[in-house]
Amino acid sequence: MTALHARRREDLAALLPAHEADAILVTHAVNVYYLTGLASSNAAVLVRADASAALATDSRYIGAARNVCADIEVIEERDVAGALLAGPGGGSGGAGRTGVEADHMSVAAYFRLGGDLPRLSQAVESVRMVKDEDEIALLRTACEITDRAFEAVLPELRPGTTEKEIARALERHMAALGADAPAFEAIVASGPNGAVPHHAPSDRPLERGDLVTMDFGARHLGYHADMTRTVAIGEPAGWQRELYDLVRAAQGAGLAAARTGTATHEVDAAARDLIAGAGYGEFFKHGLGHGVGLEIHEVPFLSPRKPGRPGRPELSELSEQPERDREHARLEDRVPITVEPGVYLPGRGGVRIEDTLVARDGGPELLTRTTKELLVL
Amino acid sequence: MTALHARRREDLAALLPAHEADAILVTHAVNVYYLTGLASSNAAVLVRADASAALATDSRYIGAARNVCADIEVIEERDVAGALLAGPGGGSGGAGRTGVEADHMSVAAYFRLGGDLPRLSQAVESVRMVKDEDEIALLRTACEITDRAFEAVLPELRPGTTEKEIARALERHMAALGADAPAFEAIVASGPNGAVPHHAPSDRPLERGDLVTMDFGARHLGYHADMTRTVAIGEPAGWQRELYDLVRAAQGAGLAAARTGTATHEVDAAARDLIAGAGYGEFFKHGLGHGVGLEIHEVPFLSPRKPGRPGRPELSELSEQPERDREHARLEDRVPITVEPGVYLPGRGGVRIEDTLVARDGGPELLTRTTKELLVL
Repeated sequence: MTALHARRREDLAALLPAHEADAILVTHAVNVYYLTGLASSNAAVLVRADASAALATDSRYIGAARNVCADIEVIEERDVAGALLAGPGGGSGGAGRTGVEADHMSVAAYFRLGGDLPRLSQAVESVRMVKDEDEIALLRTACEITDRAFEAVLPELRPGTTEKEIARALERHMAALGADAPAFEAIVASGPNGAVPHHAPSDRPLERGDLVTMDFGARHLGYHADMTRTVAIGEPAGWQRELYDLVRAAQGAGLAAARTGTATHEVDAAARDLIAGAGYGEFFKHGLGHGVGLEIHEVPFLSPRKPGRPGRPELSELSEQPERDREHARLEDRVPITVEPGVYLPGRGGVRIEDTLVARDGGPELLTRTTKELLVL
Repeated sequence: MTALHARRREDLAALLPAHEADAILVTHAVNVYYLTGLASSNAAVLVRADASAALATDSRYIGAARNVCADIEVIEERDVAGALLAGPGGGSGGAGRTGVEADHMSVAAYFRLGGDLPRLSQAVESVRMVKDEDEIALLRTACEITDRAFEAVLPELRPGTTEKEIARALERHMAALGADAPAFEAIVASGPNGAVPHHAPSDRPLERGDLVTMDFGARHLGYHADMTRTVAIGEPAGWQRELYDLVRAAQGAGLAAARTGTATHEVDAAARDLIAGAGYGEFFKHGLGHGVGLEIHEVPFLSPRKPGRPGRPELSELSEQPERDREHARLEDRVPITVEPGVYLPGRGGVRIEDTLVARDGGPELLTRTTKELLVL
C-alpha cells in the first residue's frame, strides 16, 4: 500500500504552495489513515512541500506504525503534534509555515502549539474527494451489503414491529453480510415520526397505513454506504403515494443532474426546483446530498446556492464543517456522492429516497441498486 | 427533566466567575444534551452567569427543542454559535466575555467567530464529572447489560471462532439485552494479538492455549459501560496464569485505592507499583482508568503523576483531550470511573482486567459484577 499512500502525500504536497505553507501537520485520524495507512487514535503526520513525511504516534501504535509506514520517518512520542513541529521541516513559532488542519484541531490544541500556525482548511479532504478505483470498489461492496440488508429486513416490516427492532435487524443483517460496522446509527422513522429527518428509532410499533423511512448503511473496510428508502405498511393513502411520487421524481432529477462539470448547487436545484414547484419547498429543508468515503459526510456537499452573507459564514454542524466554496464546487470524475431529497410534513409523515453513486465522466455509476418503486408491504 | 437541566446550568453558571467569563457558549453535542436534554448534531446553548440560558438549533431539531427546552429561550438558526453570540448576553467582538469550549471548538470555527473569545477548558465536564443518582442508575443498567452479554458469549469462545465473530456476538447480545448501542467498538484480542492494547478484532480464529482479552460495553440511554476480561482457551501455561494473577492483584489494588479524597495519580500508582515491582512496569503503558458517563472517556483520568514539563503539556489524543490538572484531581463522591490495568508482552500476549465502579464516600460501588477469577474455557 506504500506506493498508494506516497502518491496521496504527493497530491497533498502539491497543494501546499497555494496555501502558503511549507508543510502541513495532519492530525485528523481519518486523514492520517488516508495518507499513511495507520489507524490510530493518537497519531499525526507531517507532510512537507517536497512530499517527504514523518509520522508520530505513541507506544500503543508504534509497532503498527513501523510496519505500515516503512517508507517514512516514524517517531515514538505521546505529544505527536509537538514532536513533529519540533522536528525537521516542522517550523513552529512566529515564522512557522507549517499549517494545521483548522477544521479538526481544537482551539485548545492550537493555542498549546503557540496559536500562530497557518490555518489550512480542507486540504486533505480535497485530495480525498476524488477516489481511486480501489476505493470505489470498497464503496461498491459497502453499498451491495446495504442493498442486501434492506432486502433481508423487508419480511420483518409488519405492524407491531418497533422502529428500534427494525434498526437492530438492519444492523444484524449488515454484520451477517460482512460489514465492519454500521456506517452510522440507522434512522427508522414510521408514521408521523417520518416528519423528522433525523428521527432516532423509538419503541413505536409500525401500524397499517404508515410510511416507514429507513436511512442506514454498511461500513466496509473503512468505506461508508448511505441509503434511504421509504416503504408503505399496507395500501398507502392518496397523499402518501403522491408524496412518494414527487420525491421519487425529484430524486431521479437529482441523479440525472449529477454529471461531472455540473456545479453542486445546480444538482441540488434540479431536485429542489421540482419539489418547490409542487408547493413543498418549505418541507425539504436539508441539502440534496454529500460526498461519501472514509467518512459518511465528506466534500462535496450538494446544497442550495447561498444568498450572500459576506463575512458571516455559518458554523453549520457539530462536526464543524467548514465554510465551503459552494459557488464554485463542481462534480468531478470519480467523486462518490449521495442524492437524497425528502419531504417532511409535520404531524403527518415524510418520504426520503437516497442512493449512493459515483460521478463519472461517462455518466453516474449508481452503487445503490435497490428499486425505487414504492414497496407496499 | 426541566428542573434537572436547570440545576445543571446553575452549577455551570457558578463556575463562570472563576473563568472570568460572563457567559459560556456550549457547542459540544454531549454537553448541550447534558444541559438541555436536546440531542442534536447542530445545537448550541448559551449559559449566562445568572444561569439564564438560550438555545439555538436549526429547522431539523427546532420542534424537539421547543418541546424539550420549554424553560429557556429557543432560537431557530443554522449558524447556532453566531446567533447566540449576537443575542442578549452573548458578548462578541474585542470586549467579549463569552467563553467558548476550547477543547471542542475547531480552530476554524473559533476564528470565524472573531478569534478573540475567552477559551474555557473542561467547564461543563467538571460539572458532569459528579453524577446524580439517576445517572448512576443508568450506568448501573449499562454495566448489567454488559455483564450479561459477557456471560452469554462464553459458550461461543472456542477454538475456531474468530475475533470478529466474538465482537459481533458481544454486540448482538448487548442489543438483545436492551442496549441502545455498543459503547464503543469492541476489542477482541487473542493470543499474540493480546499484546496490542487497542487491537481491532481480526479474522484470527481462537486457538487452544490462547489468552483472549475482550474490552467492550453497552450504551444505555446515553450512558456508557466499560468492561474488560481476559479468559483462557484451554488450560493456561504457567506464564499466562502468573501474568493473570499479577494483573488481577493490581486491579484489586486499584479498586482498593479508589476512595474519595484520593488523588487520581495515587490510585494509578497503587496498581502500577505492584506491576512495576514484579518487573513488568514497561509493559503497562496506559493510564489505570478514566471517568465514564455520557462519554466513554471523561474526567477524571487516572494516570501517573507527570514529571514536570512546564509549558509543554501534551496533545494527547485525537479527541484532543485537554491538559488536565492531574496533580490535584482527587476522587469525589459519585464519580464513576474504570480501573483497568494491563500487561502486554510483545509477540506473546497480554492480560487486562477492567471494572466500572463509582467512587463514593462510603467506599466504591462496583458496577461490573462479573467474576475476576481466570475463566478457563
